[in-house]
Amino acid sequence: MKTYPDCIPCFFRQALENSRLAGADEKTQKKILIRLIRTLSAGRFDCSPPELSRFVYGIVRKLSGNPDPFLAIKRKSNRMALSVYPLLKSKVHRARDRMLAAVELAIAGNIIDYGVAGGVNIRKALNRILLMEEKVLKHESRRLFNYAQFKRSLKKSRRILYLADNAGETVFDRVLIEEIKSADPSKEIFYAVKGHPIINDALKADAASSGISSSAKIVSTGLAVPGLALSLCSPAFLRRFRQADMVISKGLGNFEALEGARKPVFFLLMAKCPVVARHVRCRQGDVVLLFRKA
Amino acid sequence: MKTYPDCIPCFFRQALENSRLAGADEKTQKKILIRLIRTLSAGRFDCSPPELSRFVYGIVRKLSGNPDPFLAIKRKSNRMALSVYPLLKSKVHRARDRMLAAVELAIAGNIIDYGVAGGVNIRKALNRILLMEEKVLKHESRRLFNYAQFKRSLKKSRRILYLADNAGETVFDRVLIEEIKSADPSKEIFYAVKGHPIINDALKADAASSGISSSAKIVSTGLAVPGLALSLCSPAFLRRFRQADMVISKGLGNFEALEGARKPVFFLLMAKCPVVARHVRCRQGDVVLLFRKA
Repeated sequence: MKTYPDCIPCFFRQALENSRLAGADEKTQKKILIRLIRTLSAGRFDCSPPELSRFVYGIVRKLSGNPDPFLAIKRKSNRMALSVYPLLKSKVHRARDRMLAAVELAIAGNIIDYGVAGGVNIRKALNRILLMEEKVLKHESRRLFNYAQFKRSLKKSRRILYLADNAGETVFDRVLIEEIKSADPSKEIFYAVKGHPIINDALKADAASSGISSSAKIVSTGLAVPGLALSLCSPAFLRRFRQADMVISKGLGNFEALEGARKPVFFLLMAKCPVVARHVRCRQGDVVLLFRKA
Repeated sequence: MKTYPDCIPCFFRQALENSRLAGADEKTQKKILIRLIRTLSAGRFDCSPPELSRFVYGIVRKLSGNPDPFLAIKRKSNRMALSVYPLLKSKVHRARDRMLAAVELAIAGNIIDYGVAGGVNIRKALNRILLMEEKVLKHESRRLFNYAQFKRSLKKSRRILYLADNAGETVFDRVLIEEIKSADPSKEIFYAVKGHPIINDALKADAASSGISSSAKIVSTGLAVPGLALSLCSPAFLRRFRQADMVISKGLGNFEALEGARKPVFFLLMAKCPVVARHVRCRQGDVVLLFRKA
C-alpha cells in the first residue's frame, strides 16, 4: 500500500507519542520531531508507510537513548495473553469449525497494537476478544473474509511462512499454528518476527516466551521496520519468502508493506487504521482475511 | 508562546484538513504535506506557532490554487453571527454589569475557530454561546479572568488597539466595542484585522460587513499570519501598536504570537487548544481574560 496523505500527520503523532513513552523530556521531544522533519525532507514518499515509519521509531530510539520503549508493554502483553491461552484453546476445541475459530482468534489478537491512534488497553483488548465470539462467528456477512480459499491453500501447502505482528498477539498466532499442525503434522511452519525493536512488534524472545517454538521454527526478518518491506530484506530472508508455499501475514504493517508483492499472500488483520480500512474497502475495526493473488 | 512539541503534528493535521477544504485532490494533498516537510526542514523552530503555521496555509494556498479556502465559511460565519446580533445586544442591555457581559460575549465569540482540531459547527457554536450565559457569568470561580484590571485599564486609556481574530467573531467584538464607546465616546478604537486570507481570520471585508466601522477604525496588520507576529509587521503597524494606550487581543493565534511582547496586553480567548490551556494553566475550553504586564 502506498503512503497516503493521512499517513504523514500520523507519522508525527506517532513520533510524539513514542517520544513520551521513551521518556524523552519536552526539549528532546521537540528535537525528535524536528529531526524527523529533516530526515523525511531528504527522502522519497513513493514507498509504503512502514518504510517511512521506521525513521519515526529509529529517531526516537536514537535521540531518547531508549533502545526499546515498548519493552515493558511487550512483556506485559505476552504475560496477559499467555494467561488467556487455555481459554483460547478451549474456544477452538468447542468450535464447530476449529480452524475457522483459530483463524478468527488470530485476527482478533491483532487488536494488540500500539502504532494506531489511542494505543490500547491490553486487559480491555483481551476481554473484547474473548467476548466477541458471537459477532466474529458471523463471518458470512463479511465481504473481506476469504476463509474457503485460505483452507484450500492450507491443504496443498507444505512450507508455510507466517509473518508475526505484535508481542502478545504471538499467543493468538500460536493457537492458529497449533491448529494447523494438529490438522497436518507434516507441515513446516516458519514464524517470522522482527530483527530489532520496532513499536510493540514481536521479536524472537516474544515468540519464544509465547510458546511458538514447539510447533514452528522462529526466524527473523532482520529488520527494524514495522512491516515486511521486501526491498530491505536480506537475500536469505527473501529466499525463504520465495520458497514458501503459502504466506500468512498478520497485521497492518505487514499488509501495508507487502500488498502488491509478486506472490500470493493471505492477510489476517483488524482494520484499525482508517486509511487501511478505506484502502481495502471495509469498515474501520473489521476483522479481515484478505487474499491477494499477486 | 513558544512552539511546543504538540504543535508540530498539529501543523501537519491542519495542512491536510485545509488542503481538503481547499479542494485539493489526493495527489495534491500529499504534495502539500511533502512541501511542508521540505519548507519546515530549512527553518527554525524557536518562534511562536503562528509564525510557523503561516507556512502551512501559504503552501496550501499556493499548491491548491485556492487563494482563500475559508471564504464561504467566513461569509457564513458573518451572516449567522449578524443574525444573533440583536440577541447579543439585548443580553448586554439586560446585564447587571454591561461591560462584563460584553467582554464575556466577545470571548465566547472566539469559539468560531477553524484552526483547532475538529473544526466548528457555526450554528451549534452560536447556540452554545447564547445558552452559556449562566455558566459564563460565574466568573468569580475563574482564576484567569482579570476583569477588574481590564476595567481599570479601559478607564484610563484613550487609544485602544483591538486585535481581531476570526470572521463572525467580529460581530461579538462589535458588541464589546460599542459598549466601550457608549461608556466613553471619546475613546479612539483601532480594530486590526489580517492583511491577507489566513484560516478563517477576519479581513477588512469581514469587519466592515459586521458593522464595526461605525464605532472603530478598521486597520490591517498587513500579515497573512494567524497571530500578531511583531517581527513580521510593517513599521507603520508597529508604531500603531507602540502608541496604543491599551491592547485588547482576541484569540489563540494573537496570544501565541504576542505573549512575551514588551507591552501590556489583555488577552481574551477561549482556551480551545490543549497546548495553550496547559501553557496558561487552565482547563481546555475555559473562558480566559488574561493580563500580561510585558
